[in-house]
Amino acid sequence: MTTGSHFSYADEQAVTAAGTEDSLVTDEIRKNFASDNVSPACPAVMEAMMRANEGSVGSYGDDILSRSLNARFGEVFGAEVAVFPVVTGTAANSLALSALVAPYGAVLCDQSAHISNDEGGAPEFFMHGAKLVTLPSADGRMSPEALRTGLRANAEGGILKPPIQALSLTQATEWGTVYALKDLAALCGIAHEQDLLVHLDGSRLSNAIAHLGCTPAEATWKAGVDVLSFGGTKCGALAAEAVVFFVNERTRPALKDFERRIKRSGHMWSKARFLSAQLLALLEDDLWLKNSAHANAMAQRIVEGLRRHAGALLPFETQGNEVFVILPDLLVKELEAAGYAFYRWPTPEGVSGTLIRLVPSFYTREQDVDALLAEIAA
Amino acid sequence: MTTGSHFSYADEQAVTAAGTEDSLVTDEIRKNFASDNVSPACPAVMEAMMRANEGSVGSYGDDILSRSLNARFGEVFGAEVAVFPVVTGTAANSLALSALVAPYGAVLCDQSAHISNDEGGAPEFFMHGAKLVTLPSADGRMSPEALRTGLRANAEGGILKPPIQALSLTQATEWGTVYALKDLAALCGIAHEQDLLVHLDGSRLSNAIAHLGCTPAEATWKAGVDVLSFGGTKCGALAAEAVVFFVNERTRPALKDFERRIKRSGHMWSKARFLSAQLLALLEDDLWLKNSAHANAMAQRIVEGLRRHAGALLPFETQGNEVFVILPDLLVKELEAAGYAFYRWPTPEGVSGTLIRLVPSFYTREQDVDALLAEIAA
Amino acid sequence: MTTGSHFSYADEQAVTAAGTEDSLVTDEIRKNFASDNVSPACPAVMEAMMRANEGSVGSYGDDILSRSLNARFGEVFGAEVAVFPVVTGTAANSLALSALVAPYGAVLCDQSAHISNDEGGAPEFFMHGAKLVTLPSADGRMSPEALRTGLRANAEGGILKPPIQALSLTQATEWGTVYALKDLAALCGIAHEQDLLVHLDGSRLSNAIAHLGCTPAEATWKAGVDVLSFGGTKCGALAAEAVVFFVNERTRPALKDFERRIKRSGHMWSKARFLSAQLLALLEDDLWLKNSAHANAMAQRIVEGLRRHAGALLPFETQGNEVFVILPDLLVKELEAAGYAFYRWPTPEGVSGTLIRLVPSFYTREQDVDALLAEIAA
Amino acid sequence: MTTGSHFSYADEQAVTAAGTEDSLVTDEIRKNFASDNVSPACPAVMEAMMRANEGSVGSYGDDILSRSLNARFGEVFGAEVAVFPVVTGTAANSLALSALVAPYGAVLCDQSAHISNDEGGAPEFFMHGAKLVTLPSADGRMSPEALRTGLRANAEGGILKPPIQALSLTQATEWGTVYALKDLAALCGIAHEQDLLVHLDGSRLSNAIAHLGCTPAEATWKAGVDVLSFGGTKCGALAAEAVVFFVNERTRPALKDFERRIKRSGHMWSKARFLSAQLLALLEDDLWLKNSAHANAMAQRIVEGLRRHAGALLPFETQGNEVFVILPDLLVKELEAAGYAFYRWPTPEGVSGTLIRLVPSFYTREQDVDALLAEIAA
Repeated sequence: MTTGSHFSYADEQAVTAAGTEDSLVTDEIRKNFASDNVSPACPAVMEAMMRANEGSVGSYGDDILSRSLNARFGEVFGAEVAVFPVVTGTAANSLALSALVAPYGAVLCDQSAHISNDEGGAPEFFMHGAKLVTLPSADGRMSPEALRTGLRANAEGGILKPPIQALSLTQATEWGTVYALKDLAALCGIAHEQDLLVHLDGSRLSNAIAHLGCTPAEATWKAGVDVLSFGGTKCGALAAEAVVFFVNERTRPALKDFERRIKRSGHMWSKARFLSAQLLALLEDDLWLKNSAHANAMAQRIVEGLRRHAGALLPFETQGNEVFVILPDLLVKELEAAGYAFYRWPTPEGVSGTLIRLVPSFYTREQDVDALLAEIAA
Repeated sequence: MTTGSHFSYADEQAVTAAGTEDSLVTDEIRKNFASDNVSPACPAVMEAMMRANEGSVGSYGDDILSRSLNARFGEVFGAEVAVFPVVTGTAANSLALSALVAPYGAVLCDQSAHISNDEGGAPEFFMHGAKLVTLPSADGRMSPEALRTGLRANAEGGILKPPIQALSLTQATEWGTVYALKDLAALCGIAHEQDLLVHLDGSRLSNAIAHLGCTPAEATWKAGVDVLSFGGTKCGALAAEAVVFFVNERTRPALKDFERRIKRSGHMWSKARFLSAQLLALLEDDLWLKNSAHANAMAQRIVEGLRRHAGALLPFETQGNEVFVILPDLLVKELEAAGYAFYRWPTPEGVSGTLIRLVPSFYTREQDVDALLAEIAA
Repeated sequence: MTTGSHFSYADEQAVTAAGTEDSLVTDEIRKNFASDNVSPACPAVMEAMMRANEGSVGSYGDDILSRSLNARFGEVFGAEVAVFPVVTGTAANSLALSALVAPYGAVLCDQSAHISNDEGGAPEFFMHGAKLVTLPSADGRMSPEALRTGLRANAEGGILKPPIQALSLTQATEWGTVYALKDLAALCGIAHEQDLLVHLDGSRLSNAIAHLGCTPAEATWKAGVDVLSFGGTKCGALAAEAVVFFVNERTRPALKDFERRIKRSGHMWSKARFLSAQLLALLEDDLWLKNSAHANAMAQRIVEGLRRHAGALLPFETQGNEVFVILPDLLVKELEAAGYAFYRWPTPEGVSGTLIRLVPSFYTREQDVDALLAEIAA
Repeated sequence: MTTGSHFSYADEQAVTAAGTEDSLVTDEIRKNFASDNVSPACPAVMEAMMRANEGSVGSYGDDILSRSLNARFGEVFGAEVAVFPVVTGTAANSLALSALVAPYGAVLCDQSAHISNDEGGAPEFFMHGAKLVTLPSADGRMSPEALRTGLRANAEGGILKPPIQALSLTQATEWGTVYALKDLAALCGIAHEQDLLVHLDGSRLSNAIAHLGCTPAEATWKAGVDVLSFGGTKCGALAAEAVVFFVNERTRPALKDFERRIKRSGHMWSKARFLSAQLLALLEDDLWLKNSAHANAMAQRIVEGLRRHAGALLPFETQGNEVFVILPDLLVKELEAAGYAFYRWPTPEGVSGTLIRLVPSFYTREQDVDALLAEIAA
């Protein structure tokens, strides 16, 4: 099936207000599949926060935890890196892109990209009006042909079109699919041929790595990624993401003065230890990957159940922790009535039923999935 | 003494790297007076974080804690308010100002203002290039005469000068002084006469209220403040500030769509409960004011000790928790050698010695102050 | 045929360098059909410039010519207007839009729109990063269905999508077609229902009016247009366009301080008389419409000739002065070799031949068209 | 005397409306001394415009006149240059600066600088919020000490202050004084030591060169200027300025893609020949310098007359074509009543009388000056 720019999030405010138990208690059955960010933080992260809450330390990153980030991420990614923690994925993506393109430039991305559809114009704000140019894809994974075509069309515009200076990819994609490493490498290769820098929106990178069974290095710089938005909140942090530069000749100019962009956007924590502590806790003993492997497994358990249901149509491969499924309208309403929370997506034209998204997380248990499937089967 | 635009923070990175024990342990004597943000969070805030870490809840503010903010702040301030939590004071100030002035407009502020000197250009970024126009003052407190002169000079520039559309004041000021309520009201009155909105940078508002012994209402909207940057981090939060709009005819247009500005700048937390929990904990049982009253008392204890020292010159009244003092150069170096951390400020021309700033917080104890004073006396 | 975002200008620099006689002499046969802006200014405009070059007058619009603009345009458009002359269409469009939407907002336009494809990112610059959201169309004319779908999809995105605050239409369109007045009115009506302001890119409005045989009032505010980019350069000026606000309750806030936006973008001429003189000359005795009627007639003469040619495919109705035609590749090359200048456009997929654009102007004579047609026929 | 930031243009609109004959006729006596931009264009410029108005030529600079600019300016300045014509000095300054500093950076300039006081925030708009940091001076000429102090104070602010990346000087200054070449070179030298680029606002560079009797090369790149805003309008053009890059290692990165900044700000003329023709006419036979030498001579004639008047106080040396003089209040009113146009400036505190500015131009004749002096003497 084709998917176009008409696909977008439903009104989050409205839907979650209706569908949320909203109780700050542990429910017998967890029914909120709206997003992986409806979960709490995982216990190890909270414990790290408590441990960090001792003594006076330098502010703005001049503390022992923050100063260890580069080395710790360097170990995990097997490369020289420069790490800049921030509090949201929108900030990570937008700050990273602002360092890669001039205000008169442009970024190529897939039409499903979060930066283009779901960040309230943040990339354009941080990039001072630089343009996002979108390319069509079938399932969120950009093809080399689409990339080449997009680059050529732009170049032909000459001075009339902002020059493409960066490529932004998303892994796992917004449709829950995952690029194979060789496909990722092919796209990065084309970008580098044209002197573009490559940004990876890794809001759910941990889910992709868990799916691919590769190393963090293979999933990123070995495939050609220059700058990564490292996602922590969805895999267990309270609120912690990071911009990770892989230090090389291409990234060095963008890296210069990057902390000034963070300060200038109000994203530099004075008590920075509390942001760093979360990230370090996630890396400890591969917690980020273990949490994501669990979330992926829960997604597969949902998919298996749905496959047994005649009325369910799965438009995309489920490779991470996001399940997209078209269900009969009535069933969707019954699920909502039963207290389940999830987002509706615009259903592709010509298809009957309602497209919804179900997102399990580290916090979702087998019994929660089974209860959901039982409700669907009933 | 006069203070000019040459006054500025010393290089924070360099100084704190040298002067910080940086141990994440509770020291016998706490020697870090660099800022109130070198402290940890206070225990009640951390406990509230732990309590918030239960169950699945709606994201982006659609949770029971976040939804209670308007009512809770409304009680504390005795007014209808709209509260938008963010993670830094720079974000709070910049977001607030961006809603008050057009990109082609300008904001008047004192030459000592944090927004003008210490936020890395964040206000200009959020305001899309709108200008900060600064006015001279003796001790961080703008005078009505300076305000009227500034407004007139700007108006005379006609189309050649960006029009002043907001006044931004700071309470307590950057020099540790506090506006009397009638003086604050006089400035707000002039601003409103000219159709300006009034923003208050309340990074240390709690210290000012503790000093004045007034109500939060008297310190803000009753004096004419339209929009407040409410400071939480310096008085005990881990990382929590808020933009607080006092809802009235003047603020209604600025308030419209304000949450879009937050989203667009990457400052909307997905797990918003953890930001809201901190603010609610600070308001509980007047914790924010009690913490600040303690910090103020520690500052007074420092001042009393310094007054007994012949070589100490106090250029400003100490009314909040910031102590500025000019000490002999040698003494300053000895304090640093003894492990004390603080910032050096540019010493006014023609004065011998070194101007330093000492900032106690809720975390500073009497024995810490006494140890410092003993070191100075020795 | 469908037209997509892949359609774009060919590299202007490259093509015109090759195809231009570039002699500043009057050629026996005028072979440059690249654009209506390859023409000189028409004589009446140059004479007005010479007449304006007498005496000392106030600068920045404080001269007798500039002060008469509102009244003169008001007569021509039969409405109260506020007129702001600027030197390029890109400036007129971008300035107008910047007054209609907030930096966090968005503008809806057709995917063929000049503002989206051909202005080097100027609208995003002037709008401080506000977004252009594009809608598909068959021939540059937006349909009411596309408009309603686009508005709905955006609204469903809630806080994740910049809110649409203006609709920008182009008349005549980028594909040389012209909206019927009732279709224009239908689109404006939908926009106003949703509290959007309507901007009209009238770079070739004169061609549209000449085609429709209507009054300037009917073509603009009577159909619901709020703000017009009035095109002067293509119909005979040397360099003169204008932002024309139709004064009403919707436009009043956008109109406030508009001259500050002009000053702030470096578009306020000190010797403004020379900009105003051009516009007044164009309005005198309907010169703008007469020049455009002639250009349209030349375009029809081209179309009639092409219709007699078996190998020519005309993908769109030619209603203004732009002729799009798909010709055999070899013929296109022969025309270029014969000294003709025009732009190549990306040919739609699955069609053989090369899509080119031919644009006659007031400066194109019957003998020039006939020579071109003879060359094609040969 | 000291001059502070309170000095600013009076409301131009109001003053010129009152004081302007505004007749588009040649007056017997020319009484408008408000600015050099109240003059018409000089005849040679208009003739060049007429000559350029022949034939079809490539647009956007692809014409024989525009393509000759680099070579022609290169001859005049004796260096490799890249020339970008634009229509206002505000555009030239703002575009140039936007290429020299990052959006998070800053520009140092004198507190009297036009970019800081008189361009409606244009530099901040084009620089995307980068900051103008002003330094005090006695007469518009920055001192090496002020420059060093400003650089040091900024550097001490560390991450809290936007980094200074460019120095912008003005020659002739806003107070009508002219830097000696060795003083200009000293300032440029300090800037280059700190890796700053040097911009020169040369709105009245021709007056400075005429005063100094030096070559254009000596006045610019030989002293260390990297990028020049070349002023044409004040010395005889209708509306033509230019950004002139002196091509060297420092300027090469700023020069890259510069034409994209021009397009993106709506400053790229489609019929570019008309902008280029003006600049070429000014350079022909040193017309720009001859016109300015005449204007300077008229200013000296005014000064000589004023020196004979007991009540006239000249606060600055008059070295270009701007005369600042403090006259008795009554005399100022009488001059206005007699039809003379000029601007009032804020009179320095503690001085009686009214500070006014008188600006002769190429269009001012000896009899006009003598009539003015007679009026003053009477």
